[in-house]
Amino acid sequence: MPHYKLTYFNIMGLAEPIRLMFAQAGVEYENVMISREEGDTTWAKLKPTTPYGTLPLLEVDGRVIAQSIAISNYLAKKFDMNGENEWEAVKAEELVQAMHDVRQPVRAWWKEKVERKKAELLKKLESDVVLPFFDRFEKLLAENGTGFFVGSRITQADLHIFNMLEWWQNNQFFSDVFYNHPKINAFIKKIANMPNIKNWLEKRPKTAV
Amino acid sequence: MPHYKLTYFNIMGLAEPIRLMFAQAGVEYENVMISREEGDTTWAKLKPTTPYGTLPLLEVDGRVIAQSIAISNYLAKKFDMNGENEWEAVKAEELVQAMHDVRQPVRAWWKEKVERKKAELLKKLESDVVLPFFDRFEKLLAENGTGFFVGSRITQADLHIFNMLEWWQNNQFFSDVFYNHPKINAFIKKIANMPNIKNWLEKRPKTAV
Ligand SMILES: N[C@@H](CCC(=O)N[C@@H](CS)C(=O)NCC(=O)O)C(=O)O
Ligand SMILES: N[C@@H](CCC(=O)N[C@@H](CS)C(=O)NCC(=O)O)C(=O)O
Repeated sequence: MPHYKLTYFNIMGLAEPIRLMFAQAGVEYENVMISREEGDTTWAKLKPTTPYGTLPLLEVDGRVIAQSIAISNYLAKKFDMNGENEWEAVKAEELVQAMHDVRQPVRAWWKEKVERKKAELLKKLESDVVLPFFDRFEKLLAENGTGFFVGSRITQADLHIFNMLEWWQNNQFFSDVFYNHPKINAFIKKIANMPNIKNWLEKRPKTAV
Repeated sequence: MPHYKLTYFNIMGLAEPIRLMFAQAGVEYENVMISREEGDTTWAKLKPTTPYGTLPLLEVDGRVIAQSIAISNYLAKKFDMNGENEWEAVKAEELVQAMHDVRQPVRAWWKEKVERKKAELLKKLESDVVLPFFDRFEKLLAENGTGFFVGSRITQADLHIFNMLEWWQNNQFFSDVFYNHPKINAFIKKIANMPNIKNWLEKRPKTAV
């Protein structure tokens, strides 16, 4: 078994789906969570040594992989979380990238400080991004019929989707929309209760985001 | 050989690296380029039928793959453009995702209409994104030493990087920066002169962007 070291900031962000993959696979890894707070020079020192000036990074026996989707695809192959054939693999990868697209507008709204602008952003976010997203994903679950998004067992896609939805739900974002999408609610419960995930959710470091 | 159909807008954008992959592989495909102009209802009609309301889409014998990185990874496997081992594959995928990160700030600058803002954006873009990018990529080429970015033959990464750089060069963006990075210039020449690529560059539809 190689030595895995995952480096990210002390938040969930782009690393949490990867941490969930390690948890579900039951694979040991070094989970390095660095601070960006002022006074802490760790990131300022580390940044120029990274491939693209960004985190997360995964080191596999000292060899560095950057870019969260590349890391996720790599581990999905290692941990057998990419479905049962090449078609399921591409569908899982597609969903992971789709989650990346949803992250950005939600983040823009979430970070907006001016109340009036924030309310405007929310309206547009709900109609243009969140509602189409829930409708599409509810339909995908209905069509697949296994409780997972791809095939008959857990893939990297489920963990990326679960991570985002769970964060929204815990923060009571889009509650009305959740209410109307029963399969998505059932999906969150199902994943949260898988023993390795449940264990990680209980013991993971509590972070602000 | 499956029937491939690639649908995108009538621009280069996110589809051109994929078109370059088809060209280099010498594989036939249906290259559908739709217009977004007013009066044209094609996209308005098509949008709700797509997995995420976005293009590009690749159809493989009628089965749809969305998300440009997922499409690229899929074809890289089919066309043997993912290096010679799992490590080269993950490095190629990493570079493809890194190009995605560069695309966004360049696009924001390029679309800005207000002259003063545009000049400010350009300054920040050059110092924070473009220069670090060129330095990193020049170094990667020096370290790899084959004229390609990963391993000893062409990968999907080369075609994504080539596409972006060639667009910048043709539009005389960042000319001073190009001037100081000889390996990047040599890389562009090398790829542009590969016979299948050369042929595609000559015959491809001329688009505004
Ligand atoms: N496409 C990259 C994006 C990485 C990224 O933007 N990371 C942010 C944190 S979420 C970062 O490292 N920011 C620190 C900085 O830019 O100095 C990925 O998916 O890994
Ligand atoms: N992450 C997606 C992004 C796709 C995307 O945003 N496509 C744009 C064109 S570049 C689009 O379809 N826009 C039309 C629309 O949103 O209606 C990918 O890489 O395929």
